[in-house]
Amino acid sequence: MARLWLTLAYEGTDFCGWQLQAAKAGQTVQGALEDVVSRVCGVSVRAHGSGRTDSGVHALGQVAHVDIPDAKAALDWQHIINAQIDPAISIIDARIVDESMHARYSVVSKTYAYSLWLNGRYSIPQRRNFVWKAGPLDLEAMDAAAALFMGEHDFRSFQNAGTPVKSTVRTVHALTRHAGQTPDEIVWRFSADGFLKQMVRNMMGFMVAVGRGQFAPQDVSRVLAATDRSAYRYPTAPPQGLCLETVVYAQPDSGQA
Amino acid sequence: MARLWLTLAYEGTDFCGWQLQAAKAGQTVQGALEDVVSRVCGVSVRAHGSGRTDSGVHALGQVAHVDIPDAKAALDWQHIINAQIDPAISIIDARIVDESMHARYSVVSKTYAYSLWLNGRYSIPQRRNFVWKAGPLDLEAMDAAAALFMGEHDFRSFQNAGTPVKSTVRTVHALTRHAGQTPDEIVWRFSADGFLKQMVRNMMGFMVAVGRGQFAPQDVSRVLAATDRSAYRYPTAPPQGLCLETVVYAQPDSGQA
Repeated sequence: MARLWLTLAYEGTDFCGWQLQAAKAGQTVQGALEDVVSRVCGVSVRAHGSGRTDSGVHALGQVAHVDIPDAKAALDWQHIINAQIDPAISIIDARIVDESMHARYSVVSKTYAYSLWLNGRYSIPQRRNFVWKAGPLDLEAMDAAAALFMGEHDFRSFQNAGTPVKSTVRTVHALTRHAGQTPDEIVWRFSADGFLKQMVRNMMGFMVAVGRGQFAPQDVSRVLAATDRSAYRYPTAPPQGLCLETVVYAQPDSGQA
Repeated sequence: MARLWLTLAYEGTDFCGWQLQAAKAGQTVQGALEDVVSRVCGVSVRAHGSGRTDSGVHALGQVAHVDIPDAKAALDWQHIINAQIDPAISIIDARIVDESMHARYSVVSKTYAYSLWLNGRYSIPQRRNFVWKAGPLDLEAMDAAAALFMGEHDFRSFQNAGTPVKSTVRTVHALTRHAGQTPDEIVWRFSADGFLKQMVRNMMGFMVAVGRGQFAPQDVSRVLAATDRSAYRYPTAPPQGLCLETVVYAQPDSGQA
């Protein structure tokens, strides 16, 4: 077996997220990828992603590995997959890696970007599948809230119900504001050692509530302390504004793996 | 009657272009706009665009006027139309103008942008409806070709068959290269006093043929001189890379109208 390591971009609009679903649910990115690689290999393969992305969430740098027969290791996998896969998915990079590398377990940090549309009078239709039309917001108040998310916290309050996890403590390395693709947009970029289920969308939803004056920036500390998603009422940001930008891995030869 | 002046953005992907078609053809932007304004006015209205855009072509600043009953002139048309129209269309600006202003006949110049995807190994699916995947190109050769399009020429060679026009002479004011939305893209921006049918797409197609080494930059002059689209073989650039960005008008109070 050889471990094929893939970096993927996808537009999540028409997918039921990354993770394979029961047969009757819609198409998933994992399913589309497994179908192509299995067909080329002549055997059924499994793709292991760095983590799930929700239905409608996009990626520029999702990472997955697939174990393939040694005889197939030398193929031009980037070309082969791109020629056959759904055009809403693209392989940005493909290479063979050491079997000690694991797309899920070797993750050191992830970065997500969330795009907000700030103009309440109109929007650009070309951007409608990539932004949350949140309307005018107090960006300085949101910056102040963002600063309070930095560092190590128990993020249980920002986790939606789902798969149980051992610990709900995560470390946020960066939460910074950037210019968007158009002058009416703003982007927040979230980096952490890992994210709980819908954690970015809940943090973004709370920050928007702050930007609308419904909470004060310092309320971040109260909400974190509650360790309960239902303790305070604020929206979960919708999926289409979210994009998984990069996943950083420990390199096996660096001694960190 | 009052003249309602609208600036529109649209994603052209799922439309059969701007212009109203026979009943069985698909949805057009003009048709979608007329439907909403007619319903609100209670009478059938006609929208006059600055010009047609082809199926799949986008707009950030298409302009149209609609004559509406005086009693409806004070409505918040931007809000009303945006609340009712197909989400692939958005009204960027709405105002009442002097009846001497005409969306088609008062045009002074138009600017189109054309986006090319240059990476031959992969693309970003989020951009697939907004770029031509042309692959690696010699951009300096294309710049040299672009320079030869500048100024007043008979552009008959770059016109596809269609509606007859009085003159095929147009003046290109600017044809410049810009950074794209991603590092793998490049944008050419075309400004002229007017464009013939598919003129931008033919000019872009010829420039790409130059960028691929199939023609020399100085061949632009030979092709112009032929005054015949079929004299030389090169592709018409596909519609999805094209966007109508701005239309400039003579202002009635400036004495230029």
